Amino acid sequence: MIRTKKALAATGRRLYARGWALGTSGNFSVVRSRQPLRLIISSSGVPKGELVSTSFLEVDAHARAVGRTKLRPSAETLLHIVIANARGAGAILHTHSVWSTVLSLRHQSRGGLSIEGLEMLKGLDGIATHEHREWIPIVPNSQDMKQLSIHLAGALSANPEAHGVLIAGHGLYTWGKTLADAERHVEILEFLLETAGRLESANGENQNS
Amino acid sequence: MIRTKKALAATGRRLYARGWALGTSGNFSVVRSRQPLRLIISSSGVPKGELVSTSFLEVDAHARAVGRTKLRPSAETLLHIVIANARGAGAILHTHSVWSTVLSLRHQSRGGLSIEGLEMLKGLDGIATHEHREWIPIVPNSQDMKQLSIHLAGALSANPEAHGVLIAGHGLYTWGKTLADAERHVEILEFLLETAGRLESANGENQNS
Amino acid sequence: MIRTKKALAATGRRLYARGWALGTSGNFSVVRSRQPLRLIISSSGVPKGELVSTSFLEVDAHARAVGRTKLRPSAETLLHIVIANARGAGAILHTHSVWSTVLSLRHQSRGGLSIEGLEMLKGLDGIATHEHREWIPIVPNSQDMKQLSIHLAGALSANPEAHGVLIAGHGLYTWGKTLADAERHVEILEFLLETAGRLESANGENQNS
Amino acid sequence: MIRTKKALAATGRRLYARGWALGTSGNFSVVRSRQPLRLIISSSGVPKGELVSTSFLEVDAHARAVGRTKLRPSAETLLHIVIANARGAGAILHTHSVWSTVLSLRHQSRGGLSIEGLEMLKGLDGIATHEHREWIPIVPNSQDMKQLSIHLAGALSANPEAHGVLIAGHGLYTWGKTLADAERHVEILEFLLETAGRLESANGENQNS
Repeated sequence: MIRTKKALAATGRRLYARGWALGTSGNFSVVRSRQPLRLIISSSGVPKGELVSTSFLEVDAHARAVGRTKLRPSAETLLHIVIANARGAGAILHTHSVWSTVLSLRHQSRGGLSIEGLEMLKGLDGIATHEHREWIPIVPNSQDMKQLSIHLAGALSANPEAHGVLIAGHGLYTWGKTLADAERHVEILEFLLETAGRLESANGENQNS
Repeated sequence: MIRTKKALAATGRRLYARGWALGTSGNFSVVRSRQPLRLIISSSGVPKGELVSTSFLEVDAHARAVGRTKLRPSAETLLHIVIANARGAGAILHTHSVWSTVLSLRHQSRGGLSIEGLEMLKGLDGIATHEHREWIPIVPNSQDMKQLSIHLAGALSANPEAHGVLIAGHGLYTWGKTLADAERHVEILEFLLETAGRLESANGENQNS
Repeated sequence: MIRTKKALAATGRRLYARGWALGTSGNFSVVRSRQPLRLIISSSGVPKGELVSTSFLEVDAHARAVGRTKLRPSAETLLHIVIANARGAGAILHTHSVWSTVLSLRHQSRGGLSIEGLEMLKGLDGIATHEHREWIPIVPNSQDMKQLSIHLAGALSANPEAHGVLIAGHGLYTWGKTLADAERHVEILEFLLETAGRLESANGENQNS
Repeated sequence: MIRTKKALAATGRRLYARGWALGTSGNFSVVRSRQPLRLIISSSGVPKGELVSTSFLEVDAHARAVGRTKLRPSAETLLHIVIANARGAGAILHTHSVWSTVLSLRHQSRGGLSIEGLEMLKGLDGIATHEHREWIPIVPNSQDMKQLSIHLAGALSANPEAHGVLIAGHGLYTWGKTLADAERHVEILEFLLETAGRLESANGENQNS
């Protein structure tokens, strides 16, 4: 478990270094067991540049801490559990970048954003061609985690092929079979979003929402 | 005190690395005592990439160095004292980023800038929802520190909920109960400003001042 | 050979750090011998931030692994071989940056992009003046490596002076007599592309493709 | 002399890390003596990310290497000598950033660029207020170093207050009494240029040259 926590901390510090998890934003988890469901997840309120192995705790399927700990699980633990269940993901990463935030607002009224024709799409699990069209659903933000998790579950079930979901004005959720897969998905999706954002900024295709 | 100075130097070097305190710009302080008021603050003219513990000195409530030292306190020490008094802050950080400068000029004529609807707002002390509307006041710049400190004090008292203040064409002041809180506020506000800046650049909402 | 692999890994990690080879994107090779042609090339699917000497393998002129190895050569090995043959290159680097992707799409319909009048052009092999006009051909992307390698070979032979080729929506191929030359070409071409991109974004010269 | 060379190498690597001296672009010098004039300057063709103390050599007032060395002085050594003479500078730094290149082209037809109203101007030697108006002259680029040095000398003498000069499509020359002063000037001027560039891009004030 210490190895998992160390790997999660290293992933988190790298995402912080790129400016994708500034302040205490973002949260990161790995699925420890499925029956019963247990996740290792970042605790609430930790500055992401200072993540260490003791910044993580174990939670159960109801987002409650397992065992004795002073740490509180991230407020968004429920969203990690939804993704772990809906996708069978082994790791879930949530980041807050400038470009994902900008695009989540520009495209919110359309319920999502499609990206196609880019070779980088092949960095997404199971995608073998740039001719793929990736639809990234955008769900409305909410502080009611129950409601947000229902919206997220809805988006996941309506878009079984999606590799990530944006929460409007909030950020990106993505996942993978392993932590390395999930981290690759963050890098790929952030690249795709910045590229899409710069293309549409230049083309004046942003007169909405 | 050496620990405080080391922590301040580390914070300063991180802000420099992000490009938010290039050259000798920016200054950083921690409140050492309240009765009487004493601050540990960066000395004038130090390149912020080379901050070490000996780059800091102690000052009193009149912005005068305490004890024997060859260091001169930052010219903006008075502004730190205003914030320490008005907000009961434990640490005050002043940065100069490209985006905060750009937005401080674009919005100067309106006296401030509001940011709302972004999850990152929750990184600000006491904010529990993205539905919060943060008004960042903008005060005119001046080389008369007495006058600037009066403007700053005015903006703080007129906006008791504000977590930061922009000085037009100059940069950001923010603070926190602890140095870690203040550093988080810099990261959050810089993120919010860059996001706001990219959104309005794209939308052509910048035809002013 | 271990020295070559270490040097390739270090180059790759630097390109990753700049954000030009995120995720598993990009691939990097050095020509080990010419008669018969042998390349040392990055294996398929390695995260580019984690490149080490064991991430590389030897391939022959038919893109087949040489000797016992569990590694699979990069899917784009054929393109490296085309360049090694057409240009007599000693090293070939392929990167995926945001700006190269953006420009490859904006200019695709014209078959290429010309850059002139910039001093940085002198960083390209054999160029002694900023008055040089560099034409960077853009070939359409394809998942059929045979077809893509024919397009690439065509672009190389039609543009014998070109120092790099863009694949539309995909990224940059460049090369050099040595690995250091090729890495310099990546830096120079990425600089030129970002500069061209920012100039035309500002000037509204992007109403196409 | 070894200390000076080490300090120059460290400065150069930092400028490279910020992306202001990619490839072999940029060159850096320190004045070693005035009577006779001797400079320590980067040798031609060194990748700026790999600068070490042995990347520098001594040159005389005619840009010739002093003593036995295999190194060739930078082709632009003459420009360093012009600045050392005209300004009595102790250190001269030449960088190639994206924003300085973009602005040097946008404003070339007007012969320069003025920046005013920004607090960061105070980072320039002798400037005590943001109300200062800094005129950055832009001279046309040339591969004829004799001609370019005459243009540069002309710009320096016509603008005795200027802290830096842009060469069109080429980059920035700045200087300082010490190497630290010159490095601060690079950071300040690059900040000012990026800020000016983003402000005018947003305002559509770039319809020229």
